[in-house]
Amino acid sequence: MNGDAVEIVYRVRTSAEALESRAEALLLEQTVELPRSALRWDFVRREMVGRVVSTAPVGEGEYRVTIEQPEATTGGDPAQLLNVVFGNSSLQPDVELEDVRVPPALARALGGPRFGIAGLRTVAGVSGRALTATAIKPMGLSAQQAGGMCRAFALGGIDVIKDDHGLADHAFCPFGERIRACLDATARAAQETGRRSVYAPNLIGGPSAVMRQAEEARGLGARAVVLSPMVLGLPVVAELVRDLGMVVLAHPALVGVRRIHPEVLLGVLFPLYGADAVIYPNAGGRFSFSRETCAEIARLLRTPRSAIAPAMPVPAGGIRPERVPEVLAAYGADTMLLIGGGLIEPAEDTLVARCRQFAESVQAFGYGR
Amino acid sequence: MNGDAVEIVYRVRTSAEALESRAEALLLEQTVELPRSALRWDFVRREMVGRVVSTAPVGEGEYRVTIEQPEATTGGDPAQLLNVVFGNSSLQPDVELEDVRVPPALARALGGPRFGIAGLRTVAGVSGRALTATAIKPMGLSAQQAGGMCRAFALGGIDVIKDDHGLADHAFCPFGERIRACLDATARAAQETGRRSVYAPNLIGGPSAVMRQAEEARGLGARAVVLSPMVLGLPVVAELVRDLGMVVLAHPALVGVRRIHPEVLLGVLFPLYGADAVIYPNAGGRFSFSRETCAEIARLLRTPRSAIAPAMPVPAGGIRPERVPEVLAAYGADTMLLIGGGLIEPAEDTLVARCRQFAESVQAFGYGR
Repeated sequence: MNGDAVEIVYRVRTSAEALESRAEALLLEQTVELPRSALRWDFVRREMVGRVVSTAPVGEGEYRVTIEQPEATTGGDPAQLLNVVFGNSSLQPDVELEDVRVPPALARALGGPRFGIAGLRTVAGVSGRALTATAIKPMGLSAQQAGGMCRAFALGGIDVIKDDHGLADHAFCPFGERIRACLDATARAAQETGRRSVYAPNLIGGPSAVMRQAEEARGLGARAVVLSPMVLGLPVVAELVRDLGMVVLAHPALVGVRRIHPEVLLGVLFPLYGADAVIYPNAGGRFSFSRETCAEIARLLRTPRSAIAPAMPVPAGGIRPERVPEVLAAYGADTMLLIGGGLIEPAEDTLVARCRQFAESVQAFGYGR
Repeated sequence: MNGDAVEIVYRVRTSAEALESRAEALLLEQTVELPRSALRWDFVRREMVGRVVSTAPVGEGEYRVTIEQPEATTGGDPAQLLNVVFGNSSLQPDVELEDVRVPPALARALGGPRFGIAGLRTVAGVSGRALTATAIKPMGLSAQQAGGMCRAFALGGIDVIKDDHGLADHAFCPFGERIRACLDATARAAQETGRRSVYAPNLIGGPSAVMRQAEEARGLGARAVVLSPMVLGLPVVAELVRDLGMVVLAHPALVGVRRIHPEVLLGVLFPLYGADAVIYPNAGGRFSFSRETCAEIARLLRTPRSAIAPAMPVPAGGIRPERVPEVLAAYGADTMLLIGGGLIEPAEDTLVARCRQFAESVQAFGYGR
């Protein structure tokens, strides 16, 4: 791949006869948006028009089309990169986005995960095994109740305790009160257990609200946050992480993966825009990603092709505590397991015990094999 | 519909036997994210749990499921509303989002189009006929070249001249220089024609960059802007429009409509978050929306169910000037026709003439029938 090109892989449904012209149209659609014959300007023809690198059949009437777009078309801007990758063509039903590779300078500009796997491990104080995580829910708990649940999770030894992504700045559970209660809960629990859980509040709202929440969370001593890139906007994440100084856990809300392959959205784009840990629906849970998709997301997060830090895969969504050994056998220990409902559903008074069981089964697995 | 509930309509693929439990799971997934049996808190059961309003078969193994969620679950927040509407369930392959109806208070909080059809007509100085629009492209033009093209469009009598959505703050065409050149072009052309075209620069980037661009554009006298809500983030749009004071043209880049029906995303959500005019791919162009989809988007924009201003439908994408009468016959005059390539492709020296032809055929149609 050319050092200063963005390489993009599409899956295209077309015929062998139409393939060449379809690939040409796809190439031009994301940038100049005019047919080549209408490009009367030297600079445009020379600097703005990429090239079709290859086309290969992948099935009956289906082709993989690899395209290089000049880095200059992105203007080095996180939002404009999305246009170049899959702006207009997201509207064309015969095309899906399969992969994206950005050149080193652009990856450096975006910055990727600021903490990544190593930083998350440092913040959580965990090495030699997978990490555990859970979610405070349901929406409707008061700040005090959220703090109480957080305390149980912390006493049970969970590494990372995140807000559910739907916990907003609700009148019945204001943002500031909730994070005070939860940070306080983890601090007090640490006095009993000797180890402090990381509490990650959920940032949600328009950009000003999110920036304000981030500042408040940092001021109160939070070391991690949760956010949903597709809800907030991927460029908002890219800007937020610049001065954030806290670990970012990305939630897949609104990802709606049918047209952008989940591997590229969650495995490539989320970390590129700054997620340190990416939550995704595990196979066998209630969101129906295949085992292969999940394995590939984890692989992409851990071994980024760009010069950015590895990000932590966070399989989640319907994992039961008894399945921990099986899930870890599949993922290995550079993983943060997120169990929410599986801990909360049974009963209030077993919460600490179920957390302990979860924590212990991860501890027992260690680095595995 | 309950006055203080958000009503959401999903299309669900399931069996008759599984329908009830699938609808219940869908209801709980967007808010409490726990089964009903695990909801041990009175407040949560009473205030956070919505209800399945109806289920109806719409085809073999396919049902329409209508759900009401309490307004309180949204916290009045534009971002959180997206979670409640289609956060987690966007990840479930058996569900598509078909419609959303927000209660009056939430619609007022979001605010919808600040100008809408009437404001856009005032700004453009057009009544009694459809509006014309075009796009400055390709990416790669210098600010001066963009200004030159803008001048030709303006001399040709186009009402609204927008930047292509891919024109970012590129080094070869800096944002400030481009809008100076284009605003200047429309002002000078107006001295010759007696009527000033509206130039709408494209705002793109992270939230700070977009806010900065908006301020610069306003300061220089721009009266409209283009932005891509799915690229920037819908909540960014909601925040931006609060003090924007310029007409917002929304571009459908990255919409990737397979899982969220285009009608609801472009026809309902885009205006709710503040778009005054919504650009969408017209039937018969290169993006394959059906005629019915396009008609429904236009209908939803013009007759919002919430107490927000009507927004202007902007069919675009591959419309040829010779098709104008046909397109207007289908849409009527409360429409802004956007033609870009169809004007630009033929040749530089016919640009003004082709614009005139476009403007005249819209003029000739007037209010139609």
